[in-house]
Amino acid sequence: MLEPALYLFPVGLSEDSMTAVLPQVNIDLLRQVRHFVVENLRSARRFLKKVDRNINIDELTFTELSEHTPAEAVGPMLAPLERGEAIGVISEAGCPAVADPGADLVAAAQRRGFKVVPLVGPSSILLSLMASGFNGQRFAFEGYLPIDEAARTRRLHEMQQRIQRERQTQIFIETPYRNNKLLAELCRRLPGNMLLCVASDITGPAQSIITRPLSAWAKAAYDYNKIPTIFLLFS
Amino acid sequence: MLEPALYLFPVGLSEDSMTAVLPQVNIDLLRQVRHFVVENLRSARRFLKKVDRNINIDELTFTELSEHTPAEAVGPMLAPLERGEAIGVISEAGCPAVADPGADLVAAAQRRGFKVVPLVGPSSILLSLMASGFNGQRFAFEGYLPIDEAARTRRLHEMQQRIQRERQTQIFIETPYRNNKLLAELCRRLPGNMLLCVASDITGPAQSIITRPLSAWAKAAYDYNKIPTIFLLFS
Repeated sequence: MLEPALYLFPVGLSEDSMTAVLPQVNIDLLRQVRHFVVENLRSARRFLKKVDRNINIDELTFTELSEHTPAEAVGPMLAPLERGEAIGVISEAGCPAVADPGADLVAAAQRRGFKVVPLVGPSSILLSLMASGFNGQRFAFEGYLPIDEAARTRRLHEMQQRIQRERQTQIFIETPYRNNKLLAELCRRLPGNMLLCVASDITGPAQSIITRPLSAWAKAAYDYNKIPTIFLLFS
Repeated sequence: MLEPALYLFPVGLSEDSMTAVLPQVNIDLLRQVRHFVVENLRSARRFLKKVDRNINIDELTFTELSEHTPAEAVGPMLAPLERGEAIGVISEAGCPAVADPGADLVAAAQRRGFKVVPLVGPSSILLSLMASGFNGQRFAFEGYLPIDEAARTRRLHEMQQRIQRERQTQIFIETPYRNNKLLAELCRRLPGNMLLCVASDITGPAQSIITRPLSAWAKAAYDYNKIPTIFLLFS
């Protein structure tokens, strides 16, 4: 029988490679779990059907955990574990509990001493770092840059300092429809010899991961509009 | 025919799960690559034999790229790509080019405009972050803490500040035979209400990922001596 634990199941980043980038152990475990906490019910069902067409969705229980879930509703989602039954966590795309509400459920499980088992899967942060050629001994993921102008200027300055003083690779994202604008802004506001890696549609059919000095990006033709993209800076 | 590119192949972190944690696409690609740049010749051959017993190792070329490789020897390793042939990069364990010399080869490939394709595999950094319950919207991997006493004190102070001011999860490692010593030091030098996640033998048979306040770690029984372990701090 499956060991009772909170299993964290990654989902493919791209529609075409939703399950191809997952190890067989994940698939074998997914088939045994009966209780799921999911970021989005519809996409989780679709994911499970892609994993195995023969999975009987009606035999499974699903609880939604989204950014709208009230904090006090999170703890009770661990009820199956208290009965000795495994729970699977499935997020919208990528690795659960890295940048989604799943982290609160993991924190609750850790507080109560339940076993947590993370499974291998695609992370745009890690894949882009591998392919950038930048320092992987020290790096930081910063999420979204601040929108407020003064805070944004401070953050850009701070990132520059951490690259220079700490040799720390800086990784961040932008709302996809603002990708081109952000890229132009980086060219305008940072030194031309700084290196920028732009990684887009990772694991997808149009995957592109390109590292260039900002001076070269400033003259390059590109269009990352509405394509999931991650940005890395180093020098 | 396989598209000419620099393919970055992760290797399992644990002897028992060397290939089980890899997606099938990696295996399919590995079977088609003829030229490899590897961190360690012996472990790379052993890995390939585990992937597929029928791989004819003698038909393949291997070039070693280790910390002892002189910088000027890295560029010429891209020769197969210039002839339109794919190259595979295999590191000792985990994801190549994240914390090993493979990053120099990737940087050289990026400078010359070659395509770089990172493949999905286990990363102790990401897996531990998922299972810690800590903030994955902002996090930093710091590698090893400095050994020099004054620099180490400064780093611990800086990490504390970044947790408090930036809500940035701090991730770091230690030489395995010093794990217990580091854990005791963290208990002694940081506030008792700070949360520490200790993740050891990730993907291995003795995998253990535990988050507790430092005040609880100070009273806990543990032995991480010589076990590959990663440490995460948050509050």
